[in-house]
Amino acid sequence: MTACIIAVGSEMLTPFRVDTDSLFVTEHLNTIGCDVRMKVVVGDDVGELAAVVQSALEWADVIVLTGGLGPTEDDITRDGVAQVLRRSLSENEEVVDRIRQRFARRGLAMPDINRRQGMVPEGATILENPNGTAPGLWLEQGRTAIVLLPGPPREMKPMFEAVVRDRLTPRSNGAGLFRRVLKITGRTESDVDATAQPIYGPWATQAVPISTTILAVLGQIELHLTAKAPDRTIGDRALDSAVGALGTALGDSVYSVDGSSLEAVVGRMLKERRLTIAPAESCTGGLLSSRLTDVPGSSDYVLSGVVCYSNRSKVEWLGVPEALIAEHGAVGEPVARAMAAGIRERAHAGIGIGITGIAGPTGGTPEKPVGTVAIAVLCGNVEKVRTFQFFGGRELVKFQASQAALNMVRLMLLSS
Amino acid sequence: MTACIIAVGSEMLTPFRVDTDSLFVTEHLNTIGCDVRMKVVVGDDVGELAAVVQSALEWADVIVLTGGLGPTEDDITRDGVAQVLRRSLSENEEVVDRIRQRFARRGLAMPDINRRQGMVPEGATILENPNGTAPGLWLEQGRTAIVLLPGPPREMKPMFEAVVRDRLTPRSNGAGLFRRVLKITGRTESDVDATAQPIYGPWATQAVPISTTILAVLGQIELHLTAKAPDRTIGDRALDSAVGALGTALGDSVYSVDGSSLEAVVGRMLKERRLTIAPAESCTGGLLSSRLTDVPGSSDYVLSGVVCYSNRSKVEWLGVPEALIAEHGAVGEPVARAMAAGIRERAHAGIGIGITGIAGPTGGTPEKPVGTVAIAVLCGNVEKVRTFQFFGGRELVKFQASQAALNMVRLMLLSS
Repeated sequence: MTACIIAVGSEMLTPFRVDTDSLFVTEHLNTIGCDVRMKVVVGDDVGELAAVVQSALEWADVIVLTGGLGPTEDDITRDGVAQVLRRSLSENEEVVDRIRQRFARRGLAMPDINRRQGMVPEGATILENPNGTAPGLWLEQGRTAIVLLPGPPREMKPMFEAVVRDRLTPRSNGAGLFRRVLKITGRTESDVDATAQPIYGPWATQAVPISTTILAVLGQIELHLTAKAPDRTIGDRALDSAVGALGTALGDSVYSVDGSSLEAVVGRMLKERRLTIAPAESCTGGLLSSRLTDVPGSSDYVLSGVVCYSNRSKVEWLGVPEALIAEHGAVGEPVARAMAAGIRERAHAGIGIGITGIAGPTGGTPEKPVGTVAIAVLCGNVEKVRTFQFFGGRELVKFQASQAALNMVRLMLLSS
Repeated sequence: MTACIIAVGSEMLTPFRVDTDSLFVTEHLNTIGCDVRMKVVVGDDVGELAAVVQSALEWADVIVLTGGLGPTEDDITRDGVAQVLRRSLSENEEVVDRIRQRFARRGLAMPDINRRQGMVPEGATILENPNGTAPGLWLEQGRTAIVLLPGPPREMKPMFEAVVRDRLTPRSNGAGLFRRVLKITGRTESDVDATAQPIYGPWATQAVPISTTILAVLGQIELHLTAKAPDRTIGDRALDSAVGALGTALGDSVYSVDGSSLEAVVGRMLKERRLTIAPAESCTGGLLSSRLTDVPGSSDYVLSGVVCYSNRSKVEWLGVPEALIAEHGAVGEPVARAMAAGIRERAHAGIGIGITGIAGPTGGTPEKPVGTVAIAVLCGNVEKVRTFQFFGGRELVKFQASQAALNMVRLMLLSS
């Protein structure tokens, strides 16, 4: 089963907006064995939309259109589709009533313009929209199902999950695609691939084939596994075994196989061990604290943190000896260690972290270029201090440093 | 002049990747008067790509293809385009030599597979790629220019700017589109539109027409102005006057007309006034400090900051009286004010900020629901304390609170 996804809206043909609805639709079409072969973005023009739908009808089993179902003149999806399929449009009283009631519940009268949203092409099935005024529409032409969905994700997604998926599933006779993502940090892409490729290579041709893509993203490597299987149970079984094999080979560097972020993984470990944590941040400027506290429930283990940008603040807030800074400079392992010790004591925390470095773009020297970051983690009697050399701009250096600090905590907890 | 942008690559038909090259291409095509009417994403399939190019040839003056110029079997853009245009492909010695030299400069031998990148369709002009191995290609068929660009942005963008734009400009006889973005915070979308619409409404039909789009994004409202003008000078003149008129009407709530972020704007104001700043953050967990220190040169005005998640840390790090917390609770204006006063004194800063609230998802009460945030800003003898009610999930509440705090600082500095 093949699909074409069409996003309708002139705003997505500007430099400011990208169509993201199609990512969700693709994921869900894939799991029911439907292969997305093409995606198109077209503006608010009936003729142009009609031409795109016409040409997709020639090959696609499913055409999913998102957007253009609003009440205004430039919402042209209903008209474009009706034109290609040569169906007449007429006002559906039931739909208009439902929209009218929606307004009434908020004490408002329905503007006349919203009647447009009650226009339904001949032969269409109406898909209810509990989260907005625009209903979805389902049409069939020959072997092709044509699905019109509202553009706003909070309306489109529930509608897809509630009705569209179930309606499409029986039409599929192919295998579904099921996915798993392994997140890895602390290793390079080529290093990960050198270890993983001999393992995943043969999977491409096995009974339940698994294809593997390696992606290097901000401070981590992701391995995306896609299994082609007749159903979820079989797909999951193949993926479980694949994830297990890769996990064994890649060891500690795999921090998540369920989509969790590194801060969530570390948070879970801290909670399990009833440990608290406090970061003292210079070059990361609060990013590590902010990431730790992005996790719901983090107040259980984050007590406090200090951002100490100036030397004076390192001395006053954390008790870093002035002489240490004078001797070694503010960026370096001795100061990172003293920061970690200071915050741990003063915050009464189980784990203290000290991060000091040069985020750039200025401030680098030949011995300590931009991107040099020293990180110390203290926990009980264990201490770990490392110097990293990161690349990229200021925000990238900050992120990689926060990532490296979280990973040092994770590895320390794993081996404790 | 109309354009179709085609992104080639099966990875962009997965749930993981979105085509972003087209945003850059669109922006630059627009400025030379070229209207992007359609965008397509197609996989690594010669036949499917050929069909898409074929149908774009029927209407587009320019077809820009990105991606699929690599050296492997699944890089099929050259083949697909050559097939549609019925041009033969042959190896270009000069191109292969250049690729060979590129490898040699790194002390490597060119893998044989890279010869594919030297395959050039009959009649094509070669566009040099200083940042990678794949050259771009320029072809013409009838009235249509067909441009093949490499997918990686760091190769594609310089190539577009260095040669493609200049080659396309003389083909354009239409007006260019020139853009400006006003960023606004502290007001709702409907409130901004009620003020702005009567002003921008008439611009759509003036001699140099300006269209306006209003977008509500994370913690702010953006007004996107697009002028259609024969050249940049005329476009800029119209936009300057438009920005001036909207600025007057919207007043203080406009914080940027040049794309700057709120933290950069506040940073600039602090630098000009030689003021320093120190945040004490509870519910934002370090996000405000992190945003302030995202700005290059922020070490001039950010001295230090404290993340005080626990009550004890508010007392110990900042000197917030225990009795105050007992009487009013940790979330509220009295504690926010005491946090701001404490951090200002202990960090020796000109401006102290205190933020305390409930980021959720738990911790809300009927009187103080999730999203309740109290913010205090102290500067000299001036103090400002406010309570906000934000909506959305945990990260959204954190962001909006940091945005509101930055805006309070901005407004205070504006009126000082």
